[in-house]
Amino acid sequence: MPAPAEPRRGRPGYDQAGVLAVAVAAFNEHGYDATSISVLADRLGISKSAIYHHFASKEQMLDRALGEALDELEGVIDEADASGGRAIDRLEQVLRGATRVLVDKLPYVTLLLRVRGNTEVERRALGRRRAFDRRVTDLVSEAQSERALRTDIDASVVSRLAFGMINSIVEWYRPGGREDADRLADDVIAIALDGLRMPTSNRVEELLG
Amino acid sequence: MPAPAEPRRGRPGYDQAGVLAVAVAAFNEHGYDATSISVLADRLGISKSAIYHHFASKEQMLDRALGEALDELEGVIDEADASGGRAIDRLEQVLRGATRVLVDKLPYVTLLLRVRGNTEVERRALGRRRAFDRRVTDLVSEAQSERALRTDIDASVVSRLAFGMINSIVEWYRPGGREDADRLADDVIAIALDGLRMPTSNRVEELLG
Repeated sequence: MPAPAEPRRGRPGYDQAGVLAVAVAAFNEHGYDATSISVLADRLGISKSAIYHHFASKEQMLDRALGEALDELEGVIDEADASGGRAIDRLEQVLRGATRVLVDKLPYVTLLLRVRGNTEVERRALGRRRAFDRRVTDLVSEAQSERALRTDIDASVVSRLAFGMINSIVEWYRPGGREDADRLADDVIAIALDGLRMPTSNRVEELLG
Repeated sequence: MPAPAEPRRGRPGYDQAGVLAVAVAAFNEHGYDATSISVLADRLGISKSAIYHHFASKEQMLDRALGEALDELEGVIDEADASGGRAIDRLEQVLRGATRVLVDKLPYVTLLLRVRGNTEVERRALGRRRAFDRRVTDLVSEAQSERALRTDIDASVVSRLAFGMINSIVEWYRPGGREDADRLADDVIAIALDGLRMPTSNRVEELLG
């Protein structure tokens, strides 16, 4: 006896990830609230019920989409933690990894950064963002204790300003532009850790004290 | 014969600037499109026609509010240009001044940063933002030519990342917090120009080459 066929999931060409990608693009363009399942069905050229084969609700789509970004970002910091070594090196790994996630998952991170906490799903995502921020701040504190980072700036301000720089990438980065993810990560690390100023012999002498 | 009285402008306690401040808070909280003149009248406790004494339309309010932020930001760069001197010093002045404008005009800059260009007023504001960005990029290029700033990062990427850091302040800064505008400006300058890494004797030797 043949095994029962898998239920058909949407039109050929759209798997769950494909439906989600189109939904995220629409959420970013028109806003989550303003995007109905009917609008998505039109955009995908499939029926509403075909969408419901993939997702129970619009909120489940949002949850999955925010998870795409958050899972990756948390993965970056988990990996850095697991690598051990000096906090400054782990911090560099996190800044570099987060920049790469931003570029690789641009629409998902864009959506995440716009979440304001209006629903339970959004509040959960905000909670995960805050936990991520706390872990970065702890890493900065640790690197300050190691005397690897300057200690005259509050660790939470450092982590906010550094991620302000990284997150701003969603505002202007366009795939296929002059900068790829690795180059951009180098730029972020160079500015955040070493600064833009060209060291003058003057300043080096001052540093040598 | 007594001079004709000035027309009453709204309820005592609300001059034009007061009406605008309440409107900007509402636009930031609920979105510009979602905020009607009726909603504003309720919030202000005055009639719609009292609002129309001050502003011809909601769009005029938006125009004025975006102008508040843009005038100040352009003022910062005009002043730096007028001061002459090295490009690196003018750039430092612009980064510091822009951080101060962000803190002083927080709700107005928040509104400006959310503008997406859906109307003529918004497109004009975006045009002014782009012109501002170009002037900052030119200043970075000039400082690179002076050999005062590292030249291995594209000037437009530098200006975008630096302003990404500054603009992110609207996301988390709350007036009356631990950091005041001057302290925050010092932090931004310190990170952007000199970086977070503590110079080690190792590195100083490497810099001395």
